[in-house]
Amino acid sequence: MRDVYIVGAAQTDIGELWNRSLMSLAVEAVRKTLAQAGGREPDCLVVGNMLSGELASQENLGAFVADWAGLGQVEAVKVEAACGSGGAALREGYLRVAAGVCDCVLVVAVEKMTDQLPDAVSAGLALAADGDYETLHGTTFVALNALIMRRYMHENGCRHEDFAGFAVNAHRNATANEHAMFRREVSAHDYAQACMVASPINLLDSSAISDGAGALLLCADPEAGGARRRVRVAASSAASDTIAVATRKDPLWLSAAEASARRAYAQAGIGPDDVDLFEAHDAFSIMAALSLEACGFAPRGRGVRLAMEGEIGPRGRVPIATRGGLKARGHPVGATGVLQVIDALVQLEGRAGASQVPGARVALTQNIGGSGASINTHILEAED
Amino acid sequence: MRDVYIVGAAQTDIGELWNRSLMSLAVEAVRKTLAQAGGREPDCLVVGNMLSGELASQENLGAFVADWAGLGQVEAVKVEAACGSGGAALREGYLRVAAGVCDCVLVVAVEKMTDQLPDAVSAGLALAADGDYETLHGTTFVALNALIMRRYMHENGCRHEDFAGFAVNAHRNATANEHAMFRREVSAHDYAQACMVASPINLLDSSAISDGAGALLLCADPEAGGARRRVRVAASSAASDTIAVATRKDPLWLSAAEASARRAYAQAGIGPDDVDLFEAHDAFSIMAALSLEACGFAPRGRGVRLAMEGEIGPRGRVPIATRGGLKARGHPVGATGVLQVIDALVQLEGRAGASQVPGARVALTQNIGGSGASINTHILEAED
Repeated sequence: MRDVYIVGAAQTDIGELWNRSLMSLAVEAVRKTLAQAGGREPDCLVVGNMLSGELASQENLGAFVADWAGLGQVEAVKVEAACGSGGAALREGYLRVAAGVCDCVLVVAVEKMTDQLPDAVSAGLALAADGDYETLHGTTFVALNALIMRRYMHENGCRHEDFAGFAVNAHRNATANEHAMFRREVSAHDYAQACMVASPINLLDSSAISDGAGALLLCADPEAGGARRRVRVAASSAASDTIAVATRKDPLWLSAAEASARRAYAQAGIGPDDVDLFEAHDAFSIMAALSLEACGFAPRGRGVRLAMEGEIGPRGRVPIATRGGLKARGHPVGATGVLQVIDALVQLEGRAGASQVPGARVALTQNIGGSGASINTHILEAED
Repeated sequence: MRDVYIVGAAQTDIGELWNRSLMSLAVEAVRKTLAQAGGREPDCLVVGNMLSGELASQENLGAFVADWAGLGQVEAVKVEAACGSGGAALREGYLRVAAGVCDCVLVVAVEKMTDQLPDAVSAGLALAADGDYETLHGTTFVALNALIMRRYMHENGCRHEDFAGFAVNAHRNATANEHAMFRREVSAHDYAQACMVASPINLLDSSAISDGAGALLLCADPEAGGARRRVRVAASSAASDTIAVATRKDPLWLSAAEASARRAYAQAGIGPDDVDLFEAHDAFSIMAALSLEACGFAPRGRGVRLAMEGEIGPRGRVPIATRGGLKARGHPVGATGVLQVIDALVQLEGRAGASQVPGARVALTQNIGGSGASINTHILEAED
């Protein structure tokens, strides 16, 4: 397997982009990324997306994006793994370059959610859960996460306010991210006052419905693009878990996240202590806590303590959501896995301003599809 | 790159399977396939599917199938390329084994279409076309193909009845396929009398809405399964074209199919004359004609002549639809690419009964997503 480098990366703004279409978002991300690589043509296009068929009336997304981005007869395919689609697309691109099948692969991840009414979006998101045993009975995706959070609080004897640090950190970091959806700070008091969505999950525990796209150019040749710093994909791994929460042996343990992280650490030859920042899948506060535990940064039931103790900030022991995370940068679901990597790159390049992690060299990104069913983990390493 | 062998293959019946769910179809195909390989566990699961979100209320299909098929924490991902999803999934599996990333990959392609009303299915299928420039204006997928067929007849001076051979051949071959949707012969007279769908396409020019699944087990070790004959994937290739028909330089030339076939021939070191049978994407008669031309079996505008001259039967010059094709075996859209390969395997193993192609050793399969936008081509070669 060859080394794979990220030689170009760009994204759109993230938010409720009422005047933008799925196509225009994807094409913007592609064009900006290819411009960084001096117009180099990719051998293959991999698109990550979850809900374009349901929310934007378009499937066949590989060919669709290739066509509208002017990429000619390039090989093009879409991969879907619910909210983990972006990470899954990155892995397909990584494998092609690592295997020598392609020299240069463009990965673009995109989601356009706001053209539909919120009920349709909720119904779409619920497709990530088990249709027969969860969704059919009326369980929304936030409800599933609420059940998990309630159980976590019960088993570990913690209170709702203990989770405040996740939202406070994410929003503070987003103020330094020009593409972020929410560029304003929130306080622990704001968190305590936020309206309830599905008890105990409130508005500031939840990422928002949003639009956006991000793209990465992966090459075997580190000099192919105009990257500010040579960044290698040191590991790429995937694992799956039961699709329904109820059928897991332990609903409070993301075992696929653990398996995927373990494989990634082994491939990169590092451990959690070597990671300078962790772009976790903080779609809900509880997912941030569980991700910290599954990836080895805290024992079971103690992930929330890292937030309570201020260890998740840019100068903490395990910086997460360093550019706002899913919570404040925004969570256009199928695009998130690539946006996490772009955020990590900005850190590795030292361009994160007020939310810069000092001396960042190794970044972990983990993208989750469903309530823990589809996991892709990547490790980025700056080579100097 | 390593050689890749197909060491297990199985499918469900194809048809209007009112009492079957998406899950049960996928799981049946998986279990039958793994049973052939002595219960060998795959390293990875790739699912091909187009419309599970729209028609079967389920996304996150990689994890969903892995879970319900009891595959534990295996890496699992879904790929989508409209009606070409099955072929695209096969290519992802092939690349993983060829690259040495995995030793054994399970590819399962599935579609459940009949739980929704026909209008919803038509709307779903139209998602393969350009949302803004085709579908939004009311063009259904059969209408797009009708425009192409009408133009073909006009430019090449042929009549509707000239296409009869495609349906006659497909239905005759399907009588020997125990899994086929339509196991009855049709005559040229039946074809002439069939009711119109979208002029000039009539009922016997069109494949039907159907349910079904197929699975393939790909391994680097040809002895890993219980295959009757050692069959290697001699080539795998992909290409894309503009998503809208109107923006192609020549609407009567499947240029991505040509590019994909050219790459496949080059990889396998063969040409059209070496192909013993061709499982073409005959979703509509016109697509069969255009595929024969794009893959080098007939000059532009002459594909239909192969049908008129009886050269597409099992003992003809270019046998196609040898087990019924999309037309008579059935076309559960996202599953078709894998079903084509299963049909080809049955031929290479000499088990096709009355529709057996004598001495079949090399098979070409080509799966098309959209009206020619996403193409995957594979060549299978029996090694003896």
